[in-house]
Amino acid sequence: MADKKIDLHKLKLPYDLKRLSISQCEDICAQIRSILIETVSENGGHLASNLGTVELTVALHRVFDSPKDKIVWDVGHQAYTHKILTGRLDRFDTLRKEGGISGFCRPDESEHDAFVSGHSSNSISAALGIATAMKLNGDKHAAIAVMGDGAFTGGMIFEGLNNAGKSDTNMIVILNYNEMSISKNVGGMAKYLSEMRTKDSYKKTKSAVERVLDVTPVVGKPIKKAVRESKNAFKNMILHSTMFEDLGFEYIGPLDGHNIEELEAGLRAAKSIGKPVFVHVNTVKGKGYAPAEENPGEYHGVGKFEIATGNPDVVTADSFSSVMGKELCRMGRQNKKICAVTAAMKYGTGLQYFAKSFPERFFDVGIAEEHAVTFCGGLASMGYVPVFAVYSTFLQRDYDQLIHDLAISGDHAVICVDRAGIVGSDGETHQGIFDVSFLTAVPNIVIYSPSNYKELELCLHKAVEEEKGTAVVRYPRGSDKSVYDKTDCGTGYEYKDFGGKYLIMTYGRLYDNAYKAAQILKEQGIVCDLIKLVKIFPIDKQITETVKCYDRVFFFEEAYFSGSLSEKYAAVCKNVESTAIHGFVKHGESDALLDELGLSNFS
Amino acid sequence: MADKKIDLHKLKLPYDLKRLSISQCEDICAQIRSILIETVSENGGHLASNLGTVELTVALHRVFDSPKDKIVWDVGHQAYTHKILTGRLDRFDTLRKEGGISGFCRPDESEHDAFVSGHSSNSISAALGIATAMKLNGDKHAAIAVMGDGAFTGGMIFEGLNNAGKSDTNMIVILNYNEMSISKNVGGMAKYLSEMRTKDSYKKTKSAVERVLDVTPVVGKPIKKAVRESKNAFKNMILHSTMFEDLGFEYIGPLDGHNIEELEAGLRAAKSIGKPVFVHVNTVKGKGYAPAEENPGEYHGVGKFEIATGNPDVVTADSFSSVMGKELCRMGRQNKKICAVTAAMKYGTGLQYFAKSFPERFFDVGIAEEHAVTFCGGLASMGYVPVFAVYSTFLQRDYDQLIHDLAISGDHAVICVDRAGIVGSDGETHQGIFDVSFLTAVPNIVIYSPSNYKELELCLHKAVEEEKGTAVVRYPRGSDKSVYDKTDCGTGYEYKDFGGKYLIMTYGRLYDNAYKAAQILKEQGIVCDLIKLVKIFPIDKQITETVKCYDRVFFFEEAYFSGSLSEKYAAVCKNVESTAIHGFVKHGESDALLDELGLSNFS
Repeated sequence: MADKKIDLHKLKLPYDLKRLSISQCEDICAQIRSILIETVSENGGHLASNLGTVELTVALHRVFDSPKDKIVWDVGHQAYTHKILTGRLDRFDTLRKEGGISGFCRPDESEHDAFVSGHSSNSISAALGIATAMKLNGDKHAAIAVMGDGAFTGGMIFEGLNNAGKSDTNMIVILNYNEMSISKNVGGMAKYLSEMRTKDSYKKTKSAVERVLDVTPVVGKPIKKAVRESKNAFKNMILHSTMFEDLGFEYIGPLDGHNIEELEAGLRAAKSIGKPVFVHVNTVKGKGYAPAEENPGEYHGVGKFEIATGNPDVVTADSFSSVMGKELCRMGRQNKKICAVTAAMKYGTGLQYFAKSFPERFFDVGIAEEHAVTFCGGLASMGYVPVFAVYSTFLQRDYDQLIHDLAISGDHAVICVDRAGIVGSDGETHQGIFDVSFLTAVPNIVIYSPSNYKELELCLHKAVEEEKGTAVVRYPRGSDKSVYDKTDCGTGYEYKDFGGKYLIMTYGRLYDNAYKAAQILKEQGIVCDLIKLVKIFPIDKQITETVKCYDRVFFFEEAYFSGSLSEKYAAVCKNVESTAIHGFVKHGESDALLDELGLSNFS
Repeated sequence: MADKKIDLHKLKLPYDLKRLSISQCEDICAQIRSILIETVSENGGHLASNLGTVELTVALHRVFDSPKDKIVWDVGHQAYTHKILTGRLDRFDTLRKEGGISGFCRPDESEHDAFVSGHSSNSISAALGIATAMKLNGDKHAAIAVMGDGAFTGGMIFEGLNNAGKSDTNMIVILNYNEMSISKNVGGMAKYLSEMRTKDSYKKTKSAVERVLDVTPVVGKPIKKAVRESKNAFKNMILHSTMFEDLGFEYIGPLDGHNIEELEAGLRAAKSIGKPVFVHVNTVKGKGYAPAEENPGEYHGVGKFEIATGNPDVVTADSFSSVMGKELCRMGRQNKKICAVTAAMKYGTGLQYFAKSFPERFFDVGIAEEHAVTFCGGLASMGYVPVFAVYSTFLQRDYDQLIHDLAISGDHAVICVDRAGIVGSDGETHQGIFDVSFLTAVPNIVIYSPSNYKELELCLHKAVEEEKGTAVVRYPRGSDKSVYDKTDCGTGYEYKDFGGKYLIMTYGRLYDNAYKAAQILKEQGIVCDLIKLVKIFPIDKQITETVKCYDRVFFFEEAYFSGSLSEKYAAVCKNVESTAIHGFVKHGESDALLDELGLSNFS
């Protein structure tokens, strides 16, 4: 007789999961998949990765006792099921909406979110800190880091593994292997993991070797004995099969990530070991939703879509990213020295055009932003012009490399900073509000901030073809919505002198708001002049002389205040008043957030 | 008949090396060792690591054609022999002196220095950029990255290996394995590499397995054949022996790093392969100088010493580092929640006292600054108070982790920023002049900058016991040389109102210079008031109100200008004039450098 059907909404979660049968769990998984598809089709978000981790998450909450056992989700965009199972089912339809639940893990949202997640590859380090605290407390619970194979291209994973393997803590690392990260995975590690996934898996091979030796006449048993008793190096080669064992972990896997029974058995074994364990789980990205299984890349991070067909609700014709990408591709035809570099964001940064035309000069380095900049340093030292396109928030990982591996030599490289400013529904881990502060603290850097597509193209040319040293071009997420007169595009600054006593200054997409504000104020009888900065740094003496002539200057800026440009202008021009961002910015619609920050309506 | 003796000084270097016999090379190595010991005993610098790489460097320059082949030295403090052999022998006695040659590699010092070196673990990424450029140029020369095993704890090495292994470039990675980094090596990787060093080395084991199979009756040959023809995972297990082969490299080694003949054979083999090769070299740190061989840790980075005995010329009784370390140790007795974390700088940061008293709460994570901060985030999330002591220049690697893994959650952690400000003879890769700029661009951070030992202790207590969130205490390299009246120590600020029209403001060790300046000016009839900031950030409104009352305010600061405190004060108080640092600062004596920067004599 089949088990009684269970309604997910009637369970006390996550506790009731433990008393369900396997077939009831499978039914729960189906219900979760429907919720995931429905919500993401409405709100946008990450679909393929979350469809892949449904059974794994159910098994985790059946085997472990969250929040006493601490689960750290790497990046966090595979944790939707975890959110559904830990008290956020009723609010799940608010996913990524302002005031709703976050698309990533946040300890202040739930005690079941053990650590902030949003940037890749930090989970092992965080979980090791947690496991170490537990050990000091004499607490026998486990800290569990769960990550996709995409995270495995980031160096922090190795720093974490290197420290965790020998740590004598109760810590479990779960690799959710789904054979792809955001873009296609790159590098030797991807190949290594891919081989481990094969049927002749390491685990099975290992026992196979022992079986072969068992049936080998005369020498088999002595070899087996010799192997077992031999020194480490020899033994490692025969009996230790994985890199993770080399680094000090027990290894369990690969497990079928859609078989709850197998997952539970593996996780229970991991739990019982009481020292660092590496659990290798194979999953299918997009599992259970045909369009996502067929094209997991397209369903990594998506906007709204129609469930029946999988067709996206809105097709974005162009964006700052695609305009940059197409222009760089055109430039690449003329200038054979241009190389394009991305850290696993080929499509997100618009580099797919360049990649297709010049595969030999295109480099996707995986989620390895530090390597990316230093690799650019190497290319630049040989006279190539590397262009690294990267999201503002992820460039935060490169502050040291920008100084040490680019600025000191002064070799020429271009950084295209995408998603600069407010990014919207991805929230505070992804807002691009710090790049002005940390980039202006790199010696000899120049920074452009175009306000529309045309200026983006002009700035890109200037940065690539004319500048020396490190040249930055930064631009926002999404498309150009500016409506002001665009005949005055340039790469320096634009000064509109209407004869006013007041001046409004800004740069980037906010110029459109400034332009509107000046018009509204004019109708009210207040004449405001305007300055649009395009080359925003270093500060231009000609501009500061102009600025000093005004009674009051209002500088609006979509950037963190401390270290901002408006702060720098205020230090030189005593009449400048700054409106910038004074803390972290949570998720919501970009326009609404800008409004709240006082960066929409200046008048 | 023995070969003719060769005088190093009469050779045309590096070219003449190629025509020497092995015994002549050995003689050259002895001459180089004398020069190394003599110079470092006079000028200070890195000794043990450089004594270990003499033969390796000679072999490299015999097998390869620098500068056409590009050698990238990781960190660079093992490259003294390389400097001697590439045109800098005559100037080698100026090592680390102002105007003399740098203690690290600098492309603007020699065309043989292929890349800037100073911060660890960047060499593979840089060399891959260079090798990629060579490939695009159709140039058959090689890019060679040389690193110690210490660098292998840094995540960038793995990002580099992951990308290089599959790159199809002519690139060679040389691991100079000497069984120790700056502190004792930590983690699973250290153990793995240590096992590879053993006599039953992987290389020999590999052929041993084949030999065993060769002589195994009946099944031996079929197994060998099956293994060779089997799928990758199975074959890897039996025939691939190292992690580096797993990542796509050919593997050569381990080679005896003091046997020139063996080294040359290995390097020639590597050169002939024409695709990524990993060469494993075993060396003895301090080789050829008994005191350094016996205590390589003490001879990692040293000041002057007496050659005959190895005794250091000057024993530093105390330093800001040791005062911090001892006080933290005292605090650790009372507060069992305090944990101390270092990234391979236990002695450099003064944490040896804490480590000895509380080994279970002390964590050396290797050269893995990113992991260190995120690990602190994990500890902090569980209510522990992690104290991460780190050099200012290396904390540059943590900007993203400080924001993402500490500041967003707001959990309490303390960062002790050692070597903040000018560090002297280590030069521009090591000056601690950026931390004020990038730390003030982290939301909700508080920063203390004590000016003497007493204040350091007070600030440490305040940061650990009273602050919330991320609290920073920053202090300079070396000892407290302040001479002013120290009765007014505190953790806020000190205001000396002599009734002057002018105000001198500063913080940290510069306060001593400010105090002297005020005295000198007073003798000249100019009354200057003084403000010493101790809690330097966030800016205190009470202070800005005071500052605004003066005609002119002179703010002196041992920090990079853009993003500096004086810039922030100038933005708020229109009368503030800033004297800060406007670019990179080369090597030299700290006092002389401060003098040149206008930060010694304010009067």
